[in-house]
Amino acid sequence: MIGTTRDNLALVAVDWGTSNLRLTLLGADGETLGERSSDRGMGSLEPSEFEGALLELIDEDLPEGKVTPIICCGMVGARQGWQEAPYLTTPCKPPEGTRATRATVADPRISVWVLPGVMQTGPADVMRGEETQIAGYLAENPDFDGVLCLPGTHTKWARISAGEIVSFQTFMTGEMFALLSKHSVLRHTVNGTDWDADAFKDAMSDAMSRPQGIAAKLFGLRADNLVGDMTPSQGKARLSGYLVGLELAGARPYWLGMEVALIGAPALSKLYQEGLAAQGVPSSIHPASDMTLSGLKAAYTVVKELN
Amino acid sequence: MIGTTRDNLALVAVDWGTSNLRLTLLGADGETLGERSSDRGMGSLEPSEFEGALLELIDEDLPEGKVTPIICCGMVGARQGWQEAPYLTTPCKPPEGTRATRATVADPRISVWVLPGVMQTGPADVMRGEETQIAGYLAENPDFDGVLCLPGTHTKWARISAGEIVSFQTFMTGEMFALLSKHSVLRHTVNGTDWDADAFKDAMSDAMSRPQGIAAKLFGLRADNLVGDMTPSQGKARLSGYLVGLELAGARPYWLGMEVALIGAPALSKLYQEGLAAQGVPSSIHPASDMTLSGLKAAYTVVKELN
Repeated sequence: MIGTTRDNLALVAVDWGTSNLRLTLLGADGETLGERSSDRGMGSLEPSEFEGALLELIDEDLPEGKVTPIICCGMVGARQGWQEAPYLTTPCKPPEGTRATRATVADPRISVWVLPGVMQTGPADVMRGEETQIAGYLAENPDFDGVLCLPGTHTKWARISAGEIVSFQTFMTGEMFALLSKHSVLRHTVNGTDWDADAFKDAMSDAMSRPQGIAAKLFGLRADNLVGDMTPSQGKARLSGYLVGLELAGARPYWLGMEVALIGAPALSKLYQEGLAAQGVPSSIHPASDMTLSGLKAAYTVVKELN
Repeated sequence: MIGTTRDNLALVAVDWGTSNLRLTLLGADGETLGERSSDRGMGSLEPSEFEGALLELIDEDLPEGKVTPIICCGMVGARQGWQEAPYLTTPCKPPEGTRATRATVADPRISVWVLPGVMQTGPADVMRGEETQIAGYLAENPDFDGVLCLPGTHTKWARISAGEIVSFQTFMTGEMFALLSKHSVLRHTVNGTDWDADAFKDAMSDAMSRPQGIAAKLFGLRADNLVGDMTPSQGKARLSGYLVGLELAGARPYWLGMEVALIGAPALSKLYQEGLAAQGVPSSIHPASDMTLSGLKAAYTVVKELN
């Protein structure tokens, strides 16, 4: 590559969630020129502050005298975000660049496009960001027919057929883990730094076979720490195991008899993979950040035309 | 009654939990002379601060030239409390005054006694405060043989036979409700002020019949608010219904085919009563504050002798 990032910049791909802003600078052939991030997520910004939060990261990278396209996915497109990008409704293909909504900007060097999320009416469900990971996965696996699981704060399970998101369901597993480990009576009981794989496995299996007991199992962590000799590392692995097991019990209609592609942070995805394997369900792992970038790139050509 | 509270004060009965300190001033015949409370719970106090927090509420009520007994239950007896009162172990009678531990005090006008909690080794469980409510209930119903449910932050289910706590189990239901309604993505979705009895009932029944789906049902509250027309009052009732239903599904071995006595805040107890009634299980409601006072009074005679 000849020249600076500024000389070569063709597209900025932005994953803008509730808590974080992450972006990739891309050249004309889709090559990565650089990565930037900040904690200025949608949750902490007023509508008028989005452009500044973005420019803060890329101001020096923008070439003068031309317009650089910026394509965004995630909570940035929510009603409380920068520019509402109305949901598509299942069953639907994950949103392509043609479905992006343009945001109003003051800086003449950029044009900003926001991809929509996907909603489902019965039962009600929503996603913003994960649909772009799904688009990325399908861009790389166009003939995929099966089940995707996207572990995270709000884990999504999605049935994919003929390139469409047929149906999906969200589980609050990651957020429950965060609440219980940071803000509940368990916080001093599950704050270990080591990982106890056996404790995780036993707890997961326990929750899968008796999910109705979850609220008692959770308090049991506190009691086992007070009365027994459970360590905070065992506590953390058990808390994780109970919550992943509970989710796998609830998501059984999705994975039963299927192969599952997991899209998420690799360490977290591995826990789901282990749980699925214990049920005889094979799965593969695909880093969420790669899938997001791939999904945003897939919208590149279209945005170029719209620009 | 002749004279002031100070002239007649014979005992101070103290319910000292993690978040609150509540006490009742009693005369020689067990009559209530007054009530006091503050938010100086065990959770916010160093060991050296307990005596001051207590005197702050009763300093002017204490007669001079004699020693007034103070009997306490709750988290005040935990390891991090004023004076550790080691647990009794099930199966056991709820603690009587003879099992109280004396706390060191500087003020010559008081002698302070702390009642122990109760623990169970298999499965591990603990209570501090509820055992005194149970003592109070048994003081009024000495021949009771059956199941007690004590709804609260950490709801307890206890099997009682021959005056003993045979076994018990704790569910984190109340704390999960507080975490989810105040600190989660649901906080703007479940903050209604009206009560929707039908929404509660439907959600409870839903969670009882499919408890494994709880993490998805919870996110469904957010989705139904975004995509559907669910109101924050319906959301609150549904959140409550899901969590109480989940607990009742888990506590089935306790209540199945039994009569249940509920000891708790009357409004919360009524929700449990409704859920149990839907399963054909009759129950009665007994205010927790009355049972605590009755339990502390039951220890009165003994403490008088020890004093």
